[in-house]
Amino acid sequence: MDKIKVGVVGGTGYAGVELMRLMLGHEHAELRVLTSRGDAGRRVDEVFPNLRGHLDLAFVAPDQARLEDCDVVFYATPNGTAMHEVPRLLEAGVRVVDLAADFRLQNVEEWSRWYGMEHACPELVEEAVYGLPEINRETIRTARLVANPGCYPTAVILGFLPLLRSGLVEPGRLIADAKSGASGAGRKAALPMLLTETSENFHAYGVAGHRHLPEIREVLAEQAGTAVDLVFVPHLLPMIRGIHATLYAGLKGEAGELQALFESAYRDEPFVDVMPAGSMPETRSVRGGNLCRIAVSRAPGSDTAIVLSVIDNLVKGAAGQAVQNMNLMFDLPETAGLGTVSLLP
Amino acid sequence: MDKIKVGVVGGTGYAGVELMRLMLGHEHAELRVLTSRGDAGRRVDEVFPNLRGHLDLAFVAPDQARLEDCDVVFYATPNGTAMHEVPRLLEAGVRVVDLAADFRLQNVEEWSRWYGMEHACPELVEEAVYGLPEINRETIRTARLVANPGCYPTAVILGFLPLLRSGLVEPGRLIADAKSGASGAGRKAALPMLLTETSENFHAYGVAGHRHLPEIREVLAEQAGTAVDLVFVPHLLPMIRGIHATLYAGLKGEAGELQALFESAYRDEPFVDVMPAGSMPETRSVRGGNLCRIAVSRAPGSDTAIVLSVIDNLVKGAAGQAVQNMNLMFDLPETAGLGTVSLLP
Amino acid sequence: MDKIKVGVVGGTGYAGVELMRLMLGHEHAELRVLTSRGDAGRRVDEVFPNLRGHLDLAFVAPDQARLEDCDVVFYATPNGTAMHEVPRLLEAGVRVVDLAADFRLQNVEEWSRWYGMEHACPELVEEAVYGLPEINRETIRTARLVANPGCYPTAVILGFLPLLRSGLVEPGRLIADAKSGASGAGRKAALPMLLTETSENFHAYGVAGHRHLPEIREVLAEQAGTAVDLVFVPHLLPMIRGIHATLYAGLKGEAGELQALFESAYRDEPFVDVMPAGSMPETRSVRGGNLCRIAVSRAPGSDTAIVLSVIDNLVKGAAGQAVQNMNLMFDLPETAGLGTVSLLP
Amino acid sequence: MDKIKVGVVGGTGYAGVELMRLMLGHEHAELRVLTSRGDAGRRVDEVFPNLRGHLDLAFVAPDQARLEDCDVVFYATPNGTAMHEVPRLLEAGVRVVDLAADFRLQNVEEWSRWYGMEHACPELVEEAVYGLPEINRETIRTARLVANPGCYPTAVILGFLPLLRSGLVEPGRLIADAKSGASGAGRKAALPMLLTETSENFHAYGVAGHRHLPEIREVLAEQAGTAVDLVFVPHLLPMIRGIHATLYAGLKGEAGELQALFESAYRDEPFVDVMPAGSMPETRSVRGGNLCRIAVSRAPGSDTAIVLSVIDNLVKGAAGQAVQNMNLMFDLPETAGLGTVSLLP
Repeated sequence: MDKIKVGVVGGTGYAGVELMRLMLGHEHAELRVLTSRGDAGRRVDEVFPNLRGHLDLAFVAPDQARLEDCDVVFYATPNGTAMHEVPRLLEAGVRVVDLAADFRLQNVEEWSRWYGMEHACPELVEEAVYGLPEINRETIRTARLVANPGCYPTAVILGFLPLLRSGLVEPGRLIADAKSGASGAGRKAALPMLLTETSENFHAYGVAGHRHLPEIREVLAEQAGTAVDLVFVPHLLPMIRGIHATLYAGLKGEAGELQALFESAYRDEPFVDVMPAGSMPETRSVRGGNLCRIAVSRAPGSDTAIVLSVIDNLVKGAAGQAVQNMNLMFDLPETAGLGTVSLLP
Repeated sequence: MDKIKVGVVGGTGYAGVELMRLMLGHEHAELRVLTSRGDAGRRVDEVFPNLRGHLDLAFVAPDQARLEDCDVVFYATPNGTAMHEVPRLLEAGVRVVDLAADFRLQNVEEWSRWYGMEHACPELVEEAVYGLPEINRETIRTARLVANPGCYPTAVILGFLPLLRSGLVEPGRLIADAKSGASGAGRKAALPMLLTETSENFHAYGVAGHRHLPEIREVLAEQAGTAVDLVFVPHLLPMIRGIHATLYAGLKGEAGELQALFESAYRDEPFVDVMPAGSMPETRSVRGGNLCRIAVSRAPGSDTAIVLSVIDNLVKGAAGQAVQNMNLMFDLPETAGLGTVSLLP
Repeated sequence: MDKIKVGVVGGTGYAGVELMRLMLGHEHAELRVLTSRGDAGRRVDEVFPNLRGHLDLAFVAPDQARLEDCDVVFYATPNGTAMHEVPRLLEAGVRVVDLAADFRLQNVEEWSRWYGMEHACPELVEEAVYGLPEINRETIRTARLVANPGCYPTAVILGFLPLLRSGLVEPGRLIADAKSGASGAGRKAALPMLLTETSENFHAYGVAGHRHLPEIREVLAEQAGTAVDLVFVPHLLPMIRGIHATLYAGLKGEAGELQALFESAYRDEPFVDVMPAGSMPETRSVRGGNLCRIAVSRAPGSDTAIVLSVIDNLVKGAAGQAVQNMNLMFDLPETAGLGTVSLLP
Repeated sequence: MDKIKVGVVGGTGYAGVELMRLMLGHEHAELRVLTSRGDAGRRVDEVFPNLRGHLDLAFVAPDQARLEDCDVVFYATPNGTAMHEVPRLLEAGVRVVDLAADFRLQNVEEWSRWYGMEHACPELVEEAVYGLPEINRETIRTARLVANPGCYPTAVILGFLPLLRSGLVEPGRLIADAKSGASGAGRKAALPMLLTETSENFHAYGVAGHRHLPEIREVLAEQAGTAVDLVFVPHLLPMIRGIHATLYAGLKGEAGELQALFESAYRDEPFVDVMPAGSMPETRSVRGGNLCRIAVSRAPGSDTAIVLSVIDNLVKGAAGQAVQNMNLMFDLPETAGLGTVSLLP
């Protein structure tokens, strides 16, 4: 079989380099075009020395890049970039996975409000498939355009999903207390993300409203078949990789067997690991791996369900999930290129 | 005025060294006796090189220590130590601040259940004053025995207090999602607390039940005048100092002005700082300082109050609060020795 | 081809888990027996959650383990363990790679002095091959017993080697200022290795003498064909993985082209990467990878050569090098199982 | 006595906030004017939340600031700023401490070469006193203009000084392998200083030449009474504060008693602490303190002296030393405001 020809637009961010790392270990895919506005002409392994000896390519300026020769193009760009270029690529027969937010919300008005711009191709929004395979596996297979989920949404949605689908919890009292490593803020010079500002420190942010809130809410409402009331508070962890979502939901009446519910919900999922009862998953246990590890319990002496959900924000929360989507889109084994063991310690 | 003669039992832990640091900057107190079982005979500044040039004392074995010559003795020992020795000291006229948990719960049976031992002097439990000055300032002044609060309880109680006292929130739906730096686990060899296990990692612990849960619940119930239902999930942060408690409570009807409520509640408190509306306090802003910084808001589109409460677990969460209690007990300015500026960055 | 049957003795340390991670990605090897004294009977993935879903084995007590059924056994044990068991295994036709120090020094007396014990099988010391493929590739191929080099020695020897072999530097003035991540101290409860003691901190250790000094000195002397005078100062870095050796050597007369010397020396080495002139290699660029990255330069205005040499102490400094040795011993491609890209960020 | 009126130009950097922290604990000094170009008009405690409750000032634009009403003005600005403004202030009778490099090198030509600009007031260079009290205590007392030393130079010079003054070492073979926390790079948005780039990572920088090299060389040569050959390699530590300099020097003939030499050299110095023989100072032992801790030894089996020298780069390496200089200039006790105990852990 010919290898899938892969293009990456915006390859100089953390999702970009992670995508390259994964593609280099993927036997059915081949990196062909990597674009960068700022680093055009520079060898990729100069920017990312971990790639020395593995990748013999240089970044190409976006307007020089022959993306239409690729089978699939990944956008690892800031929000609002992909929507300008995707129509042309789709017309050329190229399939697209957008790791940014351009196609994540079905409600275009809400999208505009949260992202502060007009949508450039609202007509494609409905066609775009939200790329969470645990929800949309079959539609992803045939999608031309996949909206790769946000990192927080991946951890939060997978944690709440069995509870909401089963109707065991009240959809009106969901709380997601989420914590993310600093790589979630991207690879760009920013004072608050200096080691001197971020290490030995912890704080919440976005309490008044974070862009991942409407994304989570929309998907959960659809899955629950009813509106949900979600409180979402993200926090910044003094470390590089990992998201830990601590989820709280009010149980209705007799809750039955939470553990069995989760195990059954994710029995066939290759990338969701329901931990044994009593576990407390560590973010490092999924570092570098395309995995969501989940533990569920009932708070002692309370009718509250507690779900602990961890992912590597750059893998299952971004690049790994994008590869998983590509595998589905091109009829490859869903786990291809995603089998490496997480690095511990 | 003569300086207060201070003894510290169990001076080789992190609360112990922090207590020494603060006492060395306290113009009305003087370290006289420092005991240690394991390090008896060793110079203190050999164990803690930050004290070189500041303290010319050696650790004394507990049975050699003339604690009865002190005005006040601090127990910075494991749980279950102070209760054996406190009666003798009180009889000798020495006042005691216990930084461990021996006298924190008024319900002795519950104490035994959580701490797994019989209480050695239940008759003193009722006399002991819970040393949170923001609640018990006046009784602390005359107390012979002060139970210094736990680190999590300090951050959580101060955050919920105005909400519960005002009756604005339902006492039946409190959630405390708390995160602590690794110094909360103490200074003892333990595999899970190695840098190699704890850094670049984040996880919850004690989900099935943590000893600070009954402490918080007992105090909050007393302050609310009714039972409270509290879910408490602690997490371990990959950093040394700091606690961040993210608190959620369901608001009843019209909530009124949360900001004004908090500002008024803590207007005269020297060590509680209510941040301006919209703030998100950082743990580092109180590193080394005896301060609890709090921000309050209403979750967007929800009837949930969110309180963010940060302390340095070793200062307002332990040694600093102990000094604050001593100041009250000995009729000193409450802020004596506690005025240093936090270290940032 | 049948897979190589692999046993690991002492699998609960960091070199052990790293060896398992690498073996799980090695198409020609299969983990068969993993022993542990303390964790016998426990599933491996309970101890190391990153292995969940990848490895379906439990630790076996050493005396229950059928190591003689393996093709190769790796000792990832404390020093002084392998030497008691290796003779029996060799007799049984099993080949051995010792990741500890038992067979690293040819001078048995010096070994006893530094390691504080009698050697249990001095007769095997001479047969043992020092497992640095860049020096001993051919003898490793046929070795029954390989002494896997120490982490510091790997970084330091590879950095000095071209200088000493070429005779360009004075062997009497070598300085190795080396820095290691905390995983070098192993996975065992130890107060000084707590996050609270090690993070936000840096210091030297072993200035009066470190066990890797005689190892480096012996190998370098052999390679230089003359005695060398080496000053070696190790330091502890506040991070998990990585060694950075900064090496200084006095150049003799005209030094010629240092860059060309190094490039030529390592041209055919798959796991030594000589960086372009002017580079300063980062430890993270080799995190998780079996690579030594080296840069060489002449100090401005001085006759001193500066070599910067980085490895991942757990990979090229331990488990990865052990796999590389196994590949040579079993006539596999030297790079088998060692091709994964380092994790960055 | 009236308090000294203090101005700080460029108060939004790390040296600036540290200077404020120290001044707030200084009983003889008072912060009067704080300037900032970018944050003019903003309350200082909004930028630095650790100052909330301690400082009731806002930043003033440089051209609005009444610096001439101050007794002393500190420049905590980028290099090349102070030299334009100092002449005017000196004329107005204001004394100046420059924490940047403008007046550190007596050789103005060399200064221009390293700093890439013309010097704006070369005529003041000779008058400026290099503010290392351990060398220039008496001239600092009467100086109008003090050039506060660089952070690396402070640690390196204090470490080499006794060796060079005594003539015990060859001035032609000095090596300084220095490691600094990330706060040394300042408080400004810069990609390489992100937590995601700097934590879990270590590397050298400036191997081809660092601006602190000529500064160290000039001072050491003057103190040694002869030219010195110095190799200086700085490295970046994955932590916030602290410099560790590991110094190597070739001993001439019989070296005598290194320990006694150092103890005698610094016997009367309030801020240099010679550790007991065999010590290995930790950077955290001086965190937040104005102290240089030094240990000296002879490398085992070698004629090389090893000196370990640690400081907090923001205190003894910047703001603390500036306060020490102010104390000397205004005839205050040299230790005023500098007595706080370092924070550990």
